[in-house]
Amino acid sequence: MDCEGHEYCGLMGIFGVPDAAVPVWLGLHALQHRGQESAGIVSSDGDKIRSRKGMGLLPQAVPSSELEKLPGHLAIGHVRYSTTGSSKPQNIQPLVVDYSEGLLAIAHNGNLVNARTLRDEYEAYGSIFQTSTDSEIIVHLLANPENVCRENSLGHCLNCVKGAYCFLFLRDDRIIAARDPQGLRPLCLGKLDEGYVVASESVAFDLIGANFLREVEPGEMVTISAEGVKSEIFAPKKDIKPAHCIFEHIYFARPDSSIFGENVHQVRHRLGRVLAEESMVPADVVVAIPDSGYSAALGYCQASGLPLDRGLIRNHYVGRTFLAPVQRQRVRAVSMKHNVVPAVVKDKRVILVDDSLIRGTTTKNLVGAIRAAGAKEVHLRISCPPNIYPCFYGIDFPTREELLAATHDIPQMEELLGVDTLRYISLSGMLSAVSLPAHHYCAACFTGKYPVKVIDKMGDKYSMDRSGEEDEDRDMLDLHGGGKKH
Amino acid sequence: MDCEGHEYCGLMGIFGVPDAAVPVWLGLHALQHRGQESAGIVSSDGDKIRSRKGMGLLPQAVPSSELEKLPGHLAIGHVRYSTTGSSKPQNIQPLVVDYSEGLLAIAHNGNLVNARTLRDEYEAYGSIFQTSTDSEIIVHLLANPENVCRENSLGHCLNCVKGAYCFLFLRDDRIIAARDPQGLRPLCLGKLDEGYVVASESVAFDLIGANFLREVEPGEMVTISAEGVKSEIFAPKKDIKPAHCIFEHIYFARPDSSIFGENVHQVRHRLGRVLAEESMVPADVVVAIPDSGYSAALGYCQASGLPLDRGLIRNHYVGRTFLAPVQRQRVRAVSMKHNVVPAVVKDKRVILVDDSLIRGTTTKNLVGAIRAAGAKEVHLRISCPPNIYPCFYGIDFPTREELLAATHDIPQMEELLGVDTLRYISLSGMLSAVSLPAHHYCAACFTGKYPVKVIDKMGDKYSMDRSGEEDEDRDMLDLHGGGKKH
Amino acid sequence: MDCEGHEYCGLMGIFGVPDAAVPVWLGLHALQHRGQESAGIVSSDGDKIRSRKGMGLLPQAVPSSELEKLPGHLAIGHVRYSTTGSSKPQNIQPLVVDYSEGLLAIAHNGNLVNARTLRDEYEAYGSIFQTSTDSEIIVHLLANPENVCRENSLGHCLNCVKGAYCFLFLRDDRIIAARDPQGLRPLCLGKLDEGYVVASESVAFDLIGANFLREVEPGEMVTISAEGVKSEIFAPKKDIKPAHCIFEHIYFARPDSSIFGENVHQVRHRLGRVLAEESMVPADVVVAIPDSGYSAALGYCQASGLPLDRGLIRNHYVGRTFLAPVQRQRVRAVSMKHNVVPAVVKDKRVILVDDSLIRGTTTKNLVGAIRAAGAKEVHLRISCPPNIYPCFYGIDFPTREELLAATHDIPQMEELLGVDTLRYISLSGMLSAVSLPAHHYCAACFTGKYPVKVIDKMGDKYSMDRSGEEDEDRDMLDLHGGGKKH
Amino acid sequence: MDCEGHEYCGLMGIFGVPDAAVPVWLGLHALQHRGQESAGIVSSDGDKIRSRKGMGLLPQAVPSSELEKLPGHLAIGHVRYSTTGSSKPQNIQPLVVDYSEGLLAIAHNGNLVNARTLRDEYEAYGSIFQTSTDSEIIVHLLANPENVCRENSLGHCLNCVKGAYCFLFLRDDRIIAARDPQGLRPLCLGKLDEGYVVASESVAFDLIGANFLREVEPGEMVTISAEGVKSEIFAPKKDIKPAHCIFEHIYFARPDSSIFGENVHQVRHRLGRVLAEESMVPADVVVAIPDSGYSAALGYCQASGLPLDRGLIRNHYVGRTFLAPVQRQRVRAVSMKHNVVPAVVKDKRVILVDDSLIRGTTTKNLVGAIRAAGAKEVHLRISCPPNIYPCFYGIDFPTREELLAATHDIPQMEELLGVDTLRYISLSGMLSAVSLPAHHYCAACFTGKYPVKVIDKMGDKYSMDRSGEEDEDRDMLDLHGGGKKH
Repeated sequence: MDCEGHEYCGLMGIFGVPDAAVPVWLGLHALQHRGQESAGIVSSDGDKIRSRKGMGLLPQAVPSSELEKLPGHLAIGHVRYSTTGSSKPQNIQPLVVDYSEGLLAIAHNGNLVNARTLRDEYEAYGSIFQTSTDSEIIVHLLANPENVCRENSLGHCLNCVKGAYCFLFLRDDRIIAARDPQGLRPLCLGKLDEGYVVASESVAFDLIGANFLREVEPGEMVTISAEGVKSEIFAPKKDIKPAHCIFEHIYFARPDSSIFGENVHQVRHRLGRVLAEESMVPADVVVAIPDSGYSAALGYCQASGLPLDRGLIRNHYVGRTFLAPVQRQRVRAVSMKHNVVPAVVKDKRVILVDDSLIRGTTTKNLVGAIRAAGAKEVHLRISCPPNIYPCFYGIDFPTREELLAATHDIPQMEELLGVDTLRYISLSGMLSAVSLPAHHYCAACFTGKYPVKVIDKMGDKYSMDRSGEEDEDRDMLDLHGGGKKH
Repeated sequence: MDCEGHEYCGLMGIFGVPDAAVPVWLGLHALQHRGQESAGIVSSDGDKIRSRKGMGLLPQAVPSSELEKLPGHLAIGHVRYSTTGSSKPQNIQPLVVDYSEGLLAIAHNGNLVNARTLRDEYEAYGSIFQTSTDSEIIVHLLANPENVCRENSLGHCLNCVKGAYCFLFLRDDRIIAARDPQGLRPLCLGKLDEGYVVASESVAFDLIGANFLREVEPGEMVTISAEGVKSEIFAPKKDIKPAHCIFEHIYFARPDSSIFGENVHQVRHRLGRVLAEESMVPADVVVAIPDSGYSAALGYCQASGLPLDRGLIRNHYVGRTFLAPVQRQRVRAVSMKHNVVPAVVKDKRVILVDDSLIRGTTTKNLVGAIRAAGAKEVHLRISCPPNIYPCFYGIDFPTREELLAATHDIPQMEELLGVDTLRYISLSGMLSAVSLPAHHYCAACFTGKYPVKVIDKMGDKYSMDRSGEEDEDRDMLDLHGGGKKH
Repeated sequence: MDCEGHEYCGLMGIFGVPDAAVPVWLGLHALQHRGQESAGIVSSDGDKIRSRKGMGLLPQAVPSSELEKLPGHLAIGHVRYSTTGSSKPQNIQPLVVDYSEGLLAIAHNGNLVNARTLRDEYEAYGSIFQTSTDSEIIVHLLANPENVCRENSLGHCLNCVKGAYCFLFLRDDRIIAARDPQGLRPLCLGKLDEGYVVASESVAFDLIGANFLREVEPGEMVTISAEGVKSEIFAPKKDIKPAHCIFEHIYFARPDSSIFGENVHQVRHRLGRVLAEESMVPADVVVAIPDSGYSAALGYCQASGLPLDRGLIRNHYVGRTFLAPVQRQRVRAVSMKHNVVPAVVKDKRVILVDDSLIRGTTTKNLVGAIRAAGAKEVHLRISCPPNIYPCFYGIDFPTREELLAATHDIPQMEELLGVDTLRYISLSGMLSAVSLPAHHYCAACFTGKYPVKVIDKMGDKYSMDRSGEEDEDRDMLDLHGGGKKH
Repeated sequence: MDCEGHEYCGLMGIFGVPDAAVPVWLGLHALQHRGQESAGIVSSDGDKIRSRKGMGLLPQAVPSSELEKLPGHLAIGHVRYSTTGSSKPQNIQPLVVDYSEGLLAIAHNGNLVNARTLRDEYEAYGSIFQTSTDSEIIVHLLANPENVCRENSLGHCLNCVKGAYCFLFLRDDRIIAARDPQGLRPLCLGKLDEGYVVASESVAFDLIGANFLREVEPGEMVTISAEGVKSEIFAPKKDIKPAHCIFEHIYFARPDSSIFGENVHQVRHRLGRVLAEESMVPADVVVAIPDSGYSAALGYCQASGLPLDRGLIRNHYVGRTFLAPVQRQRVRAVSMKHNVVPAVVKDKRVILVDDSLIRGTTTKNLVGAIRAAGAKEVHLRISCPPNIYPCFYGIDFPTREELLAATHDIPQMEELLGVDTLRYISLSGMLSAVSLPAHHYCAACFTGKYPVKVIDKMGDKYSMDRSGEEDEDRDMLDLHGGGKKH
């Protein structure tokens, strides 16, 4: 059983609204980009706790027809994308467990960096783990009789786990939301009618017509029950050092979300402007790699005065398709998802803008296609610095060998990608585009400076394989289309 | 989360045969009558442990196309029918867990009578339970560090649980089969080519061409590995007191199986003969309620000299059908499953034979239909004594209020069912039809004398409801047709 | 497109009952043995005609949840088993077509012997065929403008087609049932509340609580509309020569049905008695091949005085299973469906009774298993004469080379099957077991005397392959289990 | 059976490539925007013709795993979106029929305007129709014995049908592509390795790496067989009057396609420029309604000098979701598919650009949301003239009452939509943005001048309802998400 750590996830919780599972379900749609592999919802009517979970996109995992089987005025939901082989049904969140304090449901976004160490310790004391997720350790901490007796049991346990986490807990009568002392992942609080809503990104509020109140603070624990909202700072003051994941702004969050105090699209737009200022080159047209490079490309155009045009079109249907390996070779297209508009790039000097460059495979194909369509020059501009370090807090980068920038210098990449020039935004340029002070962000994937010490032994992929159960169903998941390319 | 205890189950395990999951899958077909609600198979290739599970009949739960994803020379499988609301995916067996000793898969048939007590104890020490099955406690016992260190850890843990159990354990390199000291449920050992097979009933051997060797003994633990078969009596000698569930012979096991030392059909045949001798009445024809009463009816005919005829026909297709409640009322038939052949019963004095009488609902309808078809008299003969006590060892009877014989005397039942006479076999008559001494059987459902003390607090339904997760998907299960009527 | 002719089918139609599709659906369950490959229902509310069809058993082809989409007080339904490669969705009945007279739905049971000839003729005149069924020709006849003008258009068209047919037609306001002048296939009329029911077998009436009125007569056409039931003999008097398919009694119909004026089980019981009288041999026990040989075995016992016992048990679950070819070889059992009870046959002289012997493959295996279990002698008794001729009227026998009795004499078969003796009932013996005069039955599969001249050019399989569309989905269908062995 | 006429469709055919069904399947992905309701592929290996069809998006309708069951070097495929109630399985194309000349498969894009008239005529002569599509009439014409004998049978039949059509025909050894004399719908010819490809839009070529050769000409018939490509002008010279559907350029075709001689995105870009020139207004930012208004918005920005920004974000996941009516009311979002980025529009004068305005419902919601986010002014600009006339050639507009511009004048619409100003491009402005002479386009939906006389009696919806079969499965289809809003 391999205990994978890198997971994209989205959280949604509601208290105090009739049939709370319905707006949770709706809100999870707005968070689907954070996890397309599995989904689950757990509700409570104050008495019974009920759950529905499944593999796939939300409508498949939890069909809307199932919602009537989730009655109650409180509910939490989770969408998940795990990136290793262990996409097992038993790993689907929210987890529901039974222990001395009764039933508890847990949903987690982020990645813990001492989960394996704690797990080994607990296993030595007789604990049994039924999932291969890092999230499960929190339950064992909570169930530890020493902790059960404590006055602030949950706060204590949260202080025991290290790394990135936003947790939603559901008991029969309340919801608790907690965020790590660094605030690595986003989590916000809103109001819906007489009730309250918690979600990973504010877009989930927009979809259900909830109002944004504020973010859950780093190191804060918010309990929502019949007695209203109770806030508590569980983390020692000295531990609270904001280190928001800047990659959420660059790539992961939706452009229409507000996280870490500001709108994502606008950050990307500013990144594009800085990028243009730092790496201007004479050109005729700016082309965004859709949809990821679009916001930055708009900023690039504004700063450079160059016109934007649609040199690449994205096919929104093919993402959902499964291609057997044998058929894959038949696709000679640039990619199943993108197509060039030759008339836009022909005889032009093209600035190609994207938000990041990870493996470079698709980008290379797109560059080739743009050249084949007659572009005179192709200049690739990336609105983040080179990704060269692993993330231990929940963003799934490939291994170091697969990270293009970790193994190639700029001239090598230019040659490999077939571009005339490749330029990244500078680290300081990037940090100038966000509103908080630079030290309030985690930029470890660019700098290698990790704000939280990694306790578990990790390679550049967080991986603690124990020879064990493995599921080879991965191909199936392609059906649901990665919403993201690289 | 309610911790249900009453479960029908079937077990199958194989060691030492290439692609062991395939014959396990085939063998589980022969055991499908022991559980139609969910099924699972876990295999090991000596290194990795893999599993496939699902709801429904075997071909739906584990499609044959999935078998190639379960490589390896050892595998165990489980079919299950849980009878309370908690037919949850996470309860599907075999369970696969991770603890200090590595991965372990467990399949269980039977019902433990101290599971709740132990669970409370373990929960108090911080253990977390993820299923609502009684089976999970054995894993917690095994993972207890005190037990991990013991020389005979598994034997010790088995001695801690009380009640009815056949367990199959799978580790990456071996299979272990264990049976409780009373031998309440059947478990037999066979040989297949160079390997070994363990199964709940011998019919599973027949389907794959394995040879029956012997039964696993009460209190015995059999380890099958590369070193061959190792037997061990784990139970203290004083605890080994055979008390085989006589209801397996009467109703539950397949007629072509051999359990507890003899063929089931022959036992039923003898029950029919004794029944005839005890309760002869002048009549014209003997009619069996198909298929359950068939064996006893043959015996009844032999002893009485009366001819057998097919007055009732069973439709093997309708069992699989789901009828929405609204449509159910449209069915005016005796039952969706049975139909009368009027010509057989018209103007006849009919002896109607069945193996048992639990709720009486269907039987009442059948009697009504036989009368409507013109039968002059209907005499109902049941080849077991009246069921008046609950079973705590794994047979799911309805609550006492629903047990017809617990709340009615014979004249009341005769009136209610509309029969001229109703006679059950006597207790001593029943015991005379089986080959072992009377005290080697558990007949608690008839006598109320329980061979194993029930430690958990139980009503007449084993039920330890903790307000919690509940699944209302029950209707769905009708799709797979109860193989059994009542 | 190959135009296959041999099909098992079941028909059900209702007029004058609210939501008629519901009892049609229920009734089709009772007819599921007549066709397990596809099913369909067409309803009318007097205005709109709606249909639902699909592959598989009824609950899969037309889920009960779909019935609300088939409103109206009249409906017809069809279950079908086609036996050649062309199990195509477009062939699923009832067919719904649009022509000058409006919409028409048609369901057909039987096989036409001049369909290909007429089809060639109509194609030459510009007609287009969209199915590869023989049934479609009747629509083209009806749509022919010459026929449209006729006073009794339908009667005329029915007289144009030759062979075996029961037709149900549905128009928006009425249902018409018609039966060929030989009455080759069964069709009966019943009463349900204020409405009327038509079905292939009377068991469909039993399931919905309808009352049997009478059979539709050979050459009769019954129109059921708001004006009640109107009967008409469409066939010229000279053509009406009853020739009921005796194989329906022997094998195909359900034992609890009444067809051709009498109960099927009782006919089979008499066949067993005659068989015993004709071919008695000293023996210890009679064993039926379940379930097909059961009725005859009862008769055999009665006449011979020998006891019946359950030497073979049928597993009702395995029929639904799909086994990939590679796995098929792993099954070493007698058959996936039958198992021997050794204790019943050991050291016994066994009379093995079945209703028919077609290919002999399964029977050979069963005999081998009975011998392996220790039987001293095995005497096979078949309650019909040897099948040596093809059926052109709707029973699907294999080709002549595969018909065991067509290519082997008795001693050869005895050797091949491994039995001590093999005896069939005599032709006259068989005919003495049914109630109508011998010349009222079609026994062509035994005698080669065909009551209706076969006009299309046919081999011993009705096959008019035109190189064309073909579906290779056949394996899938094994999932639904042939209800019948051979 | 209602014979619906308005259908979006996409066609793809390949000859001369091994396993031609695979690239046909891939190419259909690129055409998925032309039809999301059903799909089908028919292949031939020169001998047998095989087909696979189904409801839903391509991967669901024809899973990639099915492609191996479609062997052969020629294949045609079809994606379809029918817009009336009759989304019946039997209507899924390609149709495969059997007539005197053998098997024939047909796929059709467009809408015939004399289909009902011809159908009535043929029905009067005895023809039977099994679909409710206008496409079926061509088969009846071909099968007419008078036509069968003709030297150029197909050309003759094509001249009999009027309206918009691109046809692909497949026989066992060849593919024939034909386009109506007006060239209303696009159809292009390409080269793939040694073989040839025909597709509705050039994007299908890009996906499989085929090279664009040319468009099939209005009135041309192209036969592709072992003898290569044979071209023939089947239409009388006088009838060939190009009238390309300009709405394909405005709305329907993919921006990366080339149709009617030029790139679609570039046409839309020019439309945006003309629109800006015609209806400039002082403003701060241009916002496109994604994705439909994006190309025009880019042109608008270029001509106006105003900056483009992402004021609206589209959620690509929600389109696939099914919301039961009861839940629909819970969605308080602008729309499930779009979300506002408040920071972009706050305190701004916003130009909102879209390609068309049909019902106005969604647009109204979006305008409201932009205002709620603080926009000072909202000016709506539409890059086509007001849609006020029905289309009889295959574009599905709602009925006249639902067409906003048909029932409201500009001030009324401004009020209703809540915009400060609403401006459409002028007719002449639109025609100046395309490259061919104005009279080479059909702009009937704006002008009411129909290039082909409509022979069938039609309302403003082509509808020839004959009381009949109707399918209410429409909700299901929402699952697959309309790729288009309005």
